[in-house]
Amino acid sequence: MRSPIPDYLEEMLGIVRSDSTGERANYIQALATADPEVLSAAFATVDGVIYAAGDANQEISIQSISKPFVYALALADRGFDTVLANVGVEPTGEAFNEISLDSQGRPRNPMINAGAITAHALIRGPEASPPERMAAVLEGLSAFAGRTLEVDEELVSNELGQAHRNLAIAHMLASYGILPTDPRAAVEGYTRQCALLVTTKDLAIMAATLANDGVNPLTGVRVVDAAIVRQVLSVMATCGMYDAAGDWFTQVGIPAKSGVAGGIIGALPGQVGIATVSPRLDRHGNSIRGVSLFERFSGDMGLHLMEVPPPVSSAIRRSRTLDAVGTVLRVVEIQGSIRFAAAERIVREFASGRCTESMIALDLTEADSLDDVARRMLLEVTRRLALEGREVFLIDPAPLIPDPDPGEGARLTVYRSLEDLLSTRGGVTSAASNT
Amino acid sequence: MRSPIPDYLEEMLGIVRSDSTGERANYIQALATADPEVLSAAFATVDGVIYAAGDANQEISIQSISKPFVYALALADRGFDTVLANVGVEPTGEAFNEISLDSQGRPRNPMINAGAITAHALIRGPEASPPERMAAVLEGLSAFAGRTLEVDEELVSNELGQAHRNLAIAHMLASYGILPTDPRAAVEGYTRQCALLVTTKDLAIMAATLANDGVNPLTGVRVVDAAIVRQVLSVMATCGMYDAAGDWFTQVGIPAKSGVAGGIIGALPGQVGIATVSPRLDRHGNSIRGVSLFERFSGDMGLHLMEVPPPVSSAIRRSRTLDAVGTVLRVVEIQGSIRFAAAERIVREFASGRCTESMIALDLTEADSLDDVARRMLLEVTRRLALEGREVFLIDPAPLIPDPDPGEGARLTVYRSLEDLLSTRGGVTSAASNT
Amino acid sequence: MRSPIPDYLEEMLGIVRSDSTGERANYIQALATADPEVLSAAFATVDGVIYAAGDANQEISIQSISKPFVYALALADRGFDTVLANVGVEPTGEAFNEISLDSQGRPRNPMINAGAITAHALIRGPEASPPERMAAVLEGLSAFAGRTLEVDEELVSNELGQAHRNLAIAHMLASYGILPTDPRAAVEGYTRQCALLVTTKDLAIMAATLANDGVNPLTGVRVVDAAIVRQVLSVMATCGMYDAAGDWFTQVGIPAKSGVAGGIIGALPGQVGIATVSPRLDRHGNSIRGVSLFERFSGDMGLHLMEVPPPVSSAIRRSRTLDAVGTVLRVVEIQGSIRFAAAERIVREFASGRCTESMIALDLTEADSLDDVARRMLLEVTRRLALEGREVFLIDPAPLIPDPDPGEGARLTVYRSLEDLLSTRGGVTSAASNT
Amino acid sequence: MRSPIPDYLEEMLGIVRSDSTGERANYIQALATADPEVLSAAFATVDGVIYAAGDANQEISIQSISKPFVYALALADRGFDTVLANVGVEPTGEAFNEISLDSQGRPRNPMINAGAITAHALIRGPEASPPERMAAVLEGLSAFAGRTLEVDEELVSNELGQAHRNLAIAHMLASYGILPTDPRAAVEGYTRQCALLVTTKDLAIMAATLANDGVNPLTGVRVVDAAIVRQVLSVMATCGMYDAAGDWFTQVGIPAKSGVAGGIIGALPGQVGIATVSPRLDRHGNSIRGVSLFERFSGDMGLHLMEVPPPVSSAIRRSRTLDAVGTVLRVVEIQGSIRFAAAERIVREFASGRCTESMIALDLTEADSLDDVARRMLLEVTRRLALEGREVFLIDPAPLIPDPDPGEGARLTVYRSLEDLLSTRGGVTSAASNT
Repeated sequence: MRSPIPDYLEEMLGIVRSDSTGERANYIQALATADPEVLSAAFATVDGVIYAAGDANQEISIQSISKPFVYALALADRGFDTVLANVGVEPTGEAFNEISLDSQGRPRNPMINAGAITAHALIRGPEASPPERMAAVLEGLSAFAGRTLEVDEELVSNELGQAHRNLAIAHMLASYGILPTDPRAAVEGYTRQCALLVTTKDLAIMAATLANDGVNPLTGVRVVDAAIVRQVLSVMATCGMYDAAGDWFTQVGIPAKSGVAGGIIGALPGQVGIATVSPRLDRHGNSIRGVSLFERFSGDMGLHLMEVPPPVSSAIRRSRTLDAVGTVLRVVEIQGSIRFAAAERIVREFASGRCTESMIALDLTEADSLDDVARRMLLEVTRRLALEGREVFLIDPAPLIPDPDPGEGARLTVYRSLEDLLSTRGGVTSAASNT
Repeated sequence: MRSPIPDYLEEMLGIVRSDSTGERANYIQALATADPEVLSAAFATVDGVIYAAGDANQEISIQSISKPFVYALALADRGFDTVLANVGVEPTGEAFNEISLDSQGRPRNPMINAGAITAHALIRGPEASPPERMAAVLEGLSAFAGRTLEVDEELVSNELGQAHRNLAIAHMLASYGILPTDPRAAVEGYTRQCALLVTTKDLAIMAATLANDGVNPLTGVRVVDAAIVRQVLSVMATCGMYDAAGDWFTQVGIPAKSGVAGGIIGALPGQVGIATVSPRLDRHGNSIRGVSLFERFSGDMGLHLMEVPPPVSSAIRRSRTLDAVGTVLRVVEIQGSIRFAAAERIVREFASGRCTESMIALDLTEADSLDDVARRMLLEVTRRLALEGREVFLIDPAPLIPDPDPGEGARLTVYRSLEDLLSTRGGVTSAASNT
Repeated sequence: MRSPIPDYLEEMLGIVRSDSTGERANYIQALATADPEVLSAAFATVDGVIYAAGDANQEISIQSISKPFVYALALADRGFDTVLANVGVEPTGEAFNEISLDSQGRPRNPMINAGAITAHALIRGPEASPPERMAAVLEGLSAFAGRTLEVDEELVSNELGQAHRNLAIAHMLASYGILPTDPRAAVEGYTRQCALLVTTKDLAIMAATLANDGVNPLTGVRVVDAAIVRQVLSVMATCGMYDAAGDWFTQVGIPAKSGVAGGIIGALPGQVGIATVSPRLDRHGNSIRGVSLFERFSGDMGLHLMEVPPPVSSAIRRSRTLDAVGTVLRVVEIQGSIRFAAAERIVREFASGRCTESMIALDLTEADSLDDVARRMLLEVTRRLALEGREVFLIDPAPLIPDPDPGEGARLTVYRSLEDLLSTRGGVTSAASNT
Repeated sequence: MRSPIPDYLEEMLGIVRSDSTGERANYIQALATADPEVLSAAFATVDGVIYAAGDANQEISIQSISKPFVYALALADRGFDTVLANVGVEPTGEAFNEISLDSQGRPRNPMINAGAITAHALIRGPEASPPERMAAVLEGLSAFAGRTLEVDEELVSNELGQAHRNLAIAHMLASYGILPTDPRAAVEGYTRQCALLVTTKDLAIMAATLANDGVNPLTGVRVVDAAIVRQVLSVMATCGMYDAAGDWFTQVGIPAKSGVAGGIIGALPGQVGIATVSPRLDRHGNSIRGVSLFERFSGDMGLHLMEVPPPVSSAIRRSRTLDAVGTVLRVVEIQGSIRFAAAERIVREFASGRCTESMIALDLTEADSLDDVARRMLLEVTRRLALEGREVFLIDPAPLIPDPDPGEGARLTVYRSLEDLLSTRGGVTSAASNT
């Protein structure tokens, strides 16, 4: 069977191809003369499968799409405190090339040029030479992409001849003491960062690395840690699409970033990285066909962050009692992915007063995953049950709760299966499901 | 066993209680003399359980927390086109009482006063009398809360004596032709809407109604539809905390709204509605202890929207072949909640070329839920398999795919269980799991 | 001989009449349907002669031209401190109906609506009833015009129906505690003030009252004092023509104010009051033909404030010595209008060491006027000469220095003519002019 | 006799010396370590006399005081059209180092850094090399000062190390296509211009050159023409004191400019150039003692532009008839400085119908000066009288109206004195004064 996903992508490209409105970026020759008909889309799953359609192997310059990734690298390299002291996280309602400094002289966020130049300049600290800094940026962006990226040096020369606005921004930042380095070097480095060549597939993988919590799904390399991913996705969500951030969030609802060469990426946590390329831009500087594709993807695939997921049937697969070893054993079987809401239902089962038995087995065999809070909540349940004098068993073949510590005074015995428990503690006499 | 959740809430209240910084709103007597030590928090689950701690039954005025709900009512009452023509969705980076009109004269979003007054005035259209409009607002907010709310008329008088800024805003809107009604009536109605009395529990239920896709989890009444919920949550996410929206999104990551009487609500889609009350405010007008509680809730419970969920072990529980009725039957068992990413893995199983059998059974017995896109993707799989000449069976006891229509030409037989299928089509000869 | 001045005015009207660009104010019916061809100009001299051409007796509503006069009345009524605490004096670079409050919440100047509404509301203090306040405004503006002006009450009703922006401004001012009265009453009073009916001749006389240092040249009544006139003319110079203030100052250089009904006034200190009327406005809200007329008047008549006056031949008409009463008398004859620069030249004559005689007569017979500083400088000269032991005489028939007090110890004898001096002190023997 | 003017200056310095509030500019070492107690004031008359007190020969860097002069040079060098296309004339209400571009991307005026850098860069056109441009600026400023000024090159180096804000401004201007030259070269040239060393006396002479209509009163050299002086003084009046322009205009009323090294100049057309130096600045960047001195000078000496001058007794000294050559001759004697207002009174005399004689003599012997419009108005009078068939004579010894041309058909005979007229035309029989 052919996967329907590439077919879906092709179909979507077909639909948007007819829209030839908008204009290519025209401030430099290289962008103004790009083939306006280039069109592509790619999905990269968090386990590394890429679906692509159209001109997905054609290289474009990454431009502003580099911003979230270099912000991530700056956070990794210099820490949250330093970076947040120099670049804010507030949306501006203004265009990307506005200076937009806040009352402390900080760029309002890292998605506008002022913030992006600052993020670039922070990398490796003020002592680093521009080539050292650029090497670190190049290495980091390549790690996000899963292959070694290259700079289009001709484009760099081209852009530097038109870099007055960025130079203005950088000198202004320097005048406020925000920029730790020479303004011209910062602009040159930033310009070089923007001239990295990427394919639509590269962009999808870069997005998927964010969606996969910072681990590149192709290479398996952790590029940045989870706290940084959360920060970067948050900023993309509120500031990624310039002065159209609110429109994008309501219409598409995917943390995203666009670039002036026509690329857009979107990253949906835990699910997928998406990239599109089409050079004609709207007045905000976002690719027209790209925005249209993302709107369709979001709607068709239920990818909007604010899409309320369908109700989970139940976190408790079954709750029953077994007559075991001369007493009654309550076995509560957990299923699915357990986060706060599901854990709450499990807690509720025990707090309901329904489970009065003196021996309790919590069976995680059918559970898919537990997040931190779920793990802590289940351990708290075992602790409380133990404090009430009950004997508590955890059946956890995976294990999903390695080395469980229910807290002082509480005892918790772990088995790989119910059978192990029963065979250890004595056979079952009879069983009655009461859920 | 006592549920640990109320204990957790109490513990958190205990931690933040020591912070007595900030000031009560002081522009009117009633707020300036409110008991500054009132402190409470409540969680309401999407199936209607409320956990509360502190002064959770004490009434406060809802104030700006009414804004997202009245925006929802306006969308329901007048449609997206009309509302969006009069109120934007862009964050402003400005304080709540800034006029903040965009280039079309529209308030930038419905969370600032200008947008909220406009949203109020839109309800029931320009022909409605102010009492009719207020009745609709009261009825709508009561539906969100699940009980009939009442207006604090003394507070209304109090506020109207200090309503110069809102009157300025309303007259300015009228001068741009944005406000469809008399500015003084709009301000009076809006002021009355803000003076509705709610408890912390009410606020949690109101938030939970959004988290539950528009259905009040206490009453089961659908208050607004899913598209409206998505819009409202999006606007809360980007504009709900005024000029601290970016800080809130990165730090807390829960769509939220605060009010000047000290309330804050947060709604996490599909999971939980949260409310806190504490009257002392920071310079943005947000409750200081409330913000602190939300930061703790988000961190402790993994509620941040950009928290990447733990990887799902697998959407495919088991894929095996059975020798049945003289041929080989491929049985693919699905488990968990299936949205796009999980559906993609199922598609991939069939597109891999591994499943070459001429009879295929898709077993949904262990699946918890399917969203729209998952449903469409699985049906597309069955259609494509059928087009290849295979015979496809759906085992769907719930059913999760009612009345499946795989498309023209394709045949799909549905069974309630594998046993039904086998007994109908003939017994199993032998079985081999290959996943 | 017919005076050429009315002919000049007619000629200018003829030239600008061909320009029919611009639009009448269209926010209310009465202005939108005004005869667009009305055209007039008038000059009023500081001694009360009026030259007029075109429709100079036709009444229009005074509109914003009332602003400088009501500002003057507020200063007279409430004092500089109170008025300056509530309204600033800085140009804004913004349109007249911008709110433009400074960091203290004050309107930036009294020529924008916010400042003008505040100035109106200040009159007679917060205790005055609106009718009392309006009576004072009416009386004051009538004193500037030299006749009792009347309000067009139909226009008032008309304007009040469209007063949303002014109401917004007034409520905003109230919210900052700037407006001492009820915002609606302030806007209603201000609207009534703007609806006073005036002819072009009235406007010229009003302007001439400012040019004549606050004394109405027709009635001889002092309406406001000199310090207020200086303040009002200063504010007109920098803020009178809205966001085109700099253009106006460089091109025309006459303190001025325009109104939306098509009037413009200009006042050149000590020289002339000018008024023009033509209803079609440019995008700043200034009458197009009116601006054109003022540009011609300024250029043709050398009225630009920054026009450097031709050098005065000499303040000293003649300096000679006479042999009188057995000694030599130095007679220094002063001529013309003596302000600082001229007085400095007289001072220089004595400080030069040229006048060594022991008897000195300062002859003011041919001097036209002395301002304060000139008076003080000449007295200082007499005091210093006396301190050197010389005998000093003042010949002052007017007198231009009444009751001269040269300071302690100095003696100064005043005569009505040189003849008086000589006949008193003894005849002239011989005379030698040395200047 | 010692002139009281230096004594007055000393006295004023003594009064303000006690005020040691404010801070020296501290962005560079050279300014931050300047002697804060330096204090001086100087007056320069339009005929070249300098009065000075305090440290008036000490050199400081000219800084922003160079702005009006380089603006004047740009106007002279490139013409009004080119300069106005690149730099506006509107006050900004903002600080000097705000970028403040108008909707066309032009700096709002030449007194803010953006406009001053542009004015500098315009000189000699885009083809000129930076040294050529600087040579022209140096030559021009030296012409204003009347001596060859020198650059403090150490200060230039110092300033260039801190020039980020100006570089930001220059690059921003370049990005809008406003700056015709390389931004770094423009900033370097502008910085060098600001580092010219001047004494307080130099500054007073520079101001006096403006007050003297563009002619240096020391050297007699015309530096720029009258139209440029008018433009420059206008811009100084409205934009010279940054965001305190309105305060300055109402309080002081003298076109002025301040510099960050502590200098202030003021130029009162036709009267005097003033300069003060004291390094401690207020929050606007204006010298605190300097502002205080100017307030005193303006008040004490009646120098406020909006000071209404005392009424001129009469432009007509005497109007009488003489019986001459068998007919009656009307002799009208003019006195004083005749500008529009005085000329109007002369016109009025003839238009009154009082002068019915067939022979008319206009006697300018006692007139000090006539400006253009006065000259034209008097000629128009002679023309009209001639058209009525009267014989008209002009008695003009100076002459104040060289080569008078009363227009076609009119005849006008000029004499050097009344005696000449009478002796030529026949003796006087009898004389009767009727004024």
